[in-house]
Amino acid sequence: MTAPLSFSVNARDGRARTGTLSMRRGDIRTPAFMPVGTAATVKAMKPETVRETGADIILGNTYHLMLRPGAERIARLGGLHKFMNWSRPILTDSGGFQVMSLAKLRKITEDGVTFQSHIDGSRHLLSPERSMEIQRLLGADIVMAFDECTPYPATPEQARHSMELSMRWAKRSRQGFDRLEGAAAGSALFGIVQGSTFENLRRESAAALLDIGFEGYAVGGLAVGEGAEVMFDVLDYTVPLLPEDRPRYLMGVGKPSDIVGAVRRGIDMFDCVLPTRSGRNAQAFTRRGTVNLKNARHQDDPRPLDEACRCSACRSYSRAYLSHLVRAGEILGAMLLTEHNLTYYQDLMQGLRDAIAEQRLDAFIAAFEAAQAEGNIAPMGAD
Amino acid sequence: MTAPLSFSVNARDGRARTGTLSMRRGDIRTPAFMPVGTAATVKAMKPETVRETGADIILGNTYHLMLRPGAERIARLGGLHKFMNWSRPILTDSGGFQVMSLAKLRKITEDGVTFQSHIDGSRHLLSPERSMEIQRLLGADIVMAFDECTPYPATPEQARHSMELSMRWAKRSRQGFDRLEGAAAGSALFGIVQGSTFENLRRESAAALLDIGFEGYAVGGLAVGEGAEVMFDVLDYTVPLLPEDRPRYLMGVGKPSDIVGAVRRGIDMFDCVLPTRSGRNAQAFTRRGTVNLKNARHQDDPRPLDEACRCSACRSYSRAYLSHLVRAGEILGAMLLTEHNLTYYQDLMQGLRDAIAEQRLDAFIAAFEAAQAEGNIAPMGAD
Repeated sequence: MTAPLSFSVNARDGRARTGTLSMRRGDIRTPAFMPVGTAATVKAMKPETVRETGADIILGNTYHLMLRPGAERIARLGGLHKFMNWSRPILTDSGGFQVMSLAKLRKITEDGVTFQSHIDGSRHLLSPERSMEIQRLLGADIVMAFDECTPYPATPEQARHSMELSMRWAKRSRQGFDRLEGAAAGSALFGIVQGSTFENLRRESAAALLDIGFEGYAVGGLAVGEGAEVMFDVLDYTVPLLPEDRPRYLMGVGKPSDIVGAVRRGIDMFDCVLPTRSGRNAQAFTRRGTVNLKNARHQDDPRPLDEACRCSACRSYSRAYLSHLVRAGEILGAMLLTEHNLTYYQDLMQGLRDAIAEQRLDAFIAAFEAAQAEGNIAPMGAD
Repeated sequence: MTAPLSFSVNARDGRARTGTLSMRRGDIRTPAFMPVGTAATVKAMKPETVRETGADIILGNTYHLMLRPGAERIARLGGLHKFMNWSRPILTDSGGFQVMSLAKLRKITEDGVTFQSHIDGSRHLLSPERSMEIQRLLGADIVMAFDECTPYPATPEQARHSMELSMRWAKRSRQGFDRLEGAAAGSALFGIVQGSTFENLRRESAAALLDIGFEGYAVGGLAVGEGAEVMFDVLDYTVPLLPEDRPRYLMGVGKPSDIVGAVRRGIDMFDCVLPTRSGRNAQAFTRRGTVNLKNARHQDDPRPLDEACRCSACRSYSRAYLSHLVRAGEILGAMLLTEHNLTYYQDLMQGLRDAIAEQRLDAFIAAFEAAQAEGNIAPMGAD
């Protein structure tokens, strides 16, 4: 069996690192941001435009896809890549997080989670074995272990109980994945560290995962309301528990400042709905902070959203036009703002990669923070 | 003053003709279909994609744009072309049709129409002079005379009263347009023949317009519920009333079969919301008839929507995927189906132009009708 994934760290700056994750369907430059393609589409974007923003990999959601259009249907149609016309790597989550946040009448047992679809009320089961099977049917390049995302806040007892369940499920995920010959098909399995905000639990969880052995390691259970300071604190003691030669993925993060702080702490991969969801909600991320296109002052502003941005929304349109599209509820507004936000995120990742490669990450972060703060007070900048 | 527009007929087949309408911002191949860009955007499409479908000219709506974002605002921002990033010709309607179908508390007098905005209730006036001014502020290449679209059905008395008002407004439109030096700026003014379904009124209307003199002539007051047979009957006696050396525009038409029938009767230009609106409503036009992507049988169909189509929806995606996007309410579904429908319409126009140039229009139309009918009975075709 050839390794489904090879990871090389090309440069380091403090705990931060930049490198390349090589997979059968393409290379992923790290630190990497993965746009979220929940229902087999990065919302309001053609896949070729997603690629043009700089994305090397996208994320698909097991929970949504198993319910609609169904994993077996996607497999019959040739897999998720062909279905959605994205030939590069895809990471799928395990469904564990969303079954807890979206499904109805859910019941957790040792075996897994039974639930009703939020779409049509149909009954389903997600277990480590079924999650592996679904992700295999979809044809994911990176498969995530099935876990329980521990709710926040949690008592030490709740967090331990949840983490220990996730670790038993991690072992069953590994076994289920290996039985399905996912690795032989070129896909990799990542384990997920849980343990909430408790260092001893994170330590036990990381040790349990390393004992099982995964191609990469994710940090889960963060960005669930604990705040950036607590999140960074957890990363400070959790990241060093993970092997140097494996990619590290912080799930569901986050705002630009969260990503910058996590990269500094040694994280290699991110995903978040923020750039896409904000793009459909008139909210733009720029080099000078966030801009709300609903604000009246943009209606007569002939300038681009972000003068330094290469995206087509910034090259070809004014703030006045984007403001008009938002006010008129036009689909093109969602299209252009999503494209801009994803471009901004990818350019931020490229800036971080370059800064790490050139050993000037501290200066890059200082400049990033100053520009964001400037936007917050500048009369024509962010709002 | 140089002519704002030159029109050359390159070939004829019966009453049908193909030619080129040359304007400052580009050539328009006729017969031409103009996608509708109501609110300064062809809905769910980037302008570069509209161009890729084959559109030489698009239509903008005076009524919508005067209310939001406002004609003066667009003028301050450099005009509609720059605002919406479309550098080729734009035709704007006069607002006359939509003020009657969309506005509230409207009141028609000899002077014009006073009304309340359907968006915010603000009070406005549209008159021949104000319509010319607005279309000039927008920077339209082809400006339409302000008229009343006669409701259908109408008594001969109602139709005469309405037509005569429109002819007085046509004269004021010509005077208002000329005072604003629209022609000097490279734009052309089209008059609109009214008269409902009464041949004597259509004849009087055409004579009145020719007496005033316009750069092109539109047929208005059709596609308002009279049906294809009556519409074709009106065209049979109205088109020969119009000068051979000027472009003829059938407003608001239509279904592919309507366009084909009107081209055969000598019409050069069309506009309609059908391809764009249908694209947002899961309805696709294909070489084998219309396809409703909501139909369950498409869910597992790996074939493209239309195997002969060059658009990206047909080249890169299956019916199963398009069906999934529609069911999930994804924006990408509207994007891809709109792109497909506009491509289908533009390819139909190219087919008509080629057939006229090669004197085989009858054979082209027979093949078109046979393929559409076949789709209606084929098990995997249209529905």
